[in-house]
Amino acid sequence: MESQIIFYQLFEKETSTYTYLLGDPDTKEAVLIDPVIETVDRDVKLIEELGLKLKYILDTHVHADHITGSGEIRNRTGAKIGVSSAYNITCPDLQLNDQDEIHFGKHVIKVIHTPGHTSGCLSYQVGNMVFTGDALLVRSCGRTDFQGGSSEQLFHSVRDRIFSLSDETIIYPAHDYKGFTKSQVGVEKKLNPRLNLDIKKDEFIEIMANLKLPYPNKIKESVPANLQCGILK
Amino acid sequence: MESQIIFYQLFEKETSTYTYLLGDPDTKEAVLIDPVIETVDRDVKLIEELGLKLKYILDTHVHADHITGSGEIRNRTGAKIGVSSAYNITCPDLQLNDQDEIHFGKHVIKVIHTPGHTSGCLSYQVGNMVFTGDALLVRSCGRTDFQGGSSEQLFHSVRDRIFSLSDETIIYPAHDYKGFTKSQVGVEKKLNPRLNLDIKKDEFIEIMANLKLPYPNKIKESVPANLQCGILK
Repeated sequence: MESQIIFYQLFEKETSTYTYLLGDPDTKEAVLIDPVIETVDRDVKLIEELGLKLKYILDTHVHADHITGSGEIRNRTGAKIGVSSAYNITCPDLQLNDQDEIHFGKHVIKVIHTPGHTSGCLSYQVGNMVFTGDALLVRSCGRTDFQGGSSEQLFHSVRDRIFSLSDETIIYPAHDYKGFTKSQVGVEKKLNPRLNLDIKKDEFIEIMANLKLPYPNKIKESVPANLQCGILK
Repeated sequence: MESQIIFYQLFEKETSTYTYLLGDPDTKEAVLIDPVIETVDRDVKLIEELGLKLKYILDTHVHADHITGSGEIRNRTGAKIGVSSAYNITCPDLQLNDQDEIHFGKHVIKVIHTPGHTSGCLSYQVGNMVFTGDALLVRSCGRTDFQGGSSEQLFHSVRDRIFSLSDETIIYPAHDYKGFTKSQVGVEKKLNPRLNLDIKKDEFIEIMANLKLPYPNKIKESVPANLQCGILK
């Protein structure tokens, strides 16, 4: 893939968030997935340095732990924002649905609706890579206790949708807190302690009901801002 | 490369250090580059989970900002430690020199002596990837003001050795402080503000002489420990 596609994984340390830049080396059209407000300058500079034309900014979901950089980057670049139609928010340019396809250069992003962490979580498949947001994390998954979360839905999203991709598909998550940068479908099928193929739905729902996680530090500012693409008016 | 080689980039947040795990999917032989003492448990667990047999632990150099995990991982796995012969230290199993080759499965690591950050800095080339340690960082380079550092040597290491690799070669550094995970030779030739092809040696030496960096927080504990592969006796 490396020579056919420009690909950068970028990390925001405070919230351990990954942003992804994908570009076509021929047409220079590019897509940014899950930018963070604190790293907008870095991301815009990189896009300029590489001579890319940003076409789309895609959020995997309305984040609760950080403010998206999507609105600010749209202001600076003119790129269109895409978010799931399930949130019924008006700031995005594109209301995305399951099985939509988004094109940049010769590449296609396939939209996969993977709700459960929130009602509108999307995964984006590009070639042998899938960007899973908070639906599936390395050896973990997103919580399901707010923003329309549902453990039952998340179980089906991962097991029926993400795990239906080939075992070699590389999983790029929206976060990692232990320093992992990626995984693979085949590896998570075996090793994910919550969602490996031996775990039954009832067990998963039980695991998720007992996580007892504190609320994210930034939820009160993040969610209202992110419902407006990160720019509070 | 993805299907021919097992490859993981791993991050240690406190010192922003990258550790790399490479493995052969057929023989399961593996190599770990630049492990950190704080993340030894994570790394050993990952190696076990993936069913790999760790053959070598390679440090790109004697680090001054963190303690290497090499000695501890050798104790747990029996893998051999490789470090540059230039340091004249006795703890490594392998004293590495320029143009040495290290084999794991069907893969070859080519050792490139790239001194300047320290006297014994090595870069490791594997296929289309090069692990540059602190010699070349994304849009930056390692400092040259202690541990036998030399700006003149570093200039030649990067410009004559690393930049002689193909433009498509992917650069994986030992650190990044802004969230970059990799670069490419062709990109750094153009965009590295200290070492791009327009910069002359005298200019580089001048830039490096004026960095005025504070000493690393952990230098007093790290260097003595790392001269013994991270295990003070």
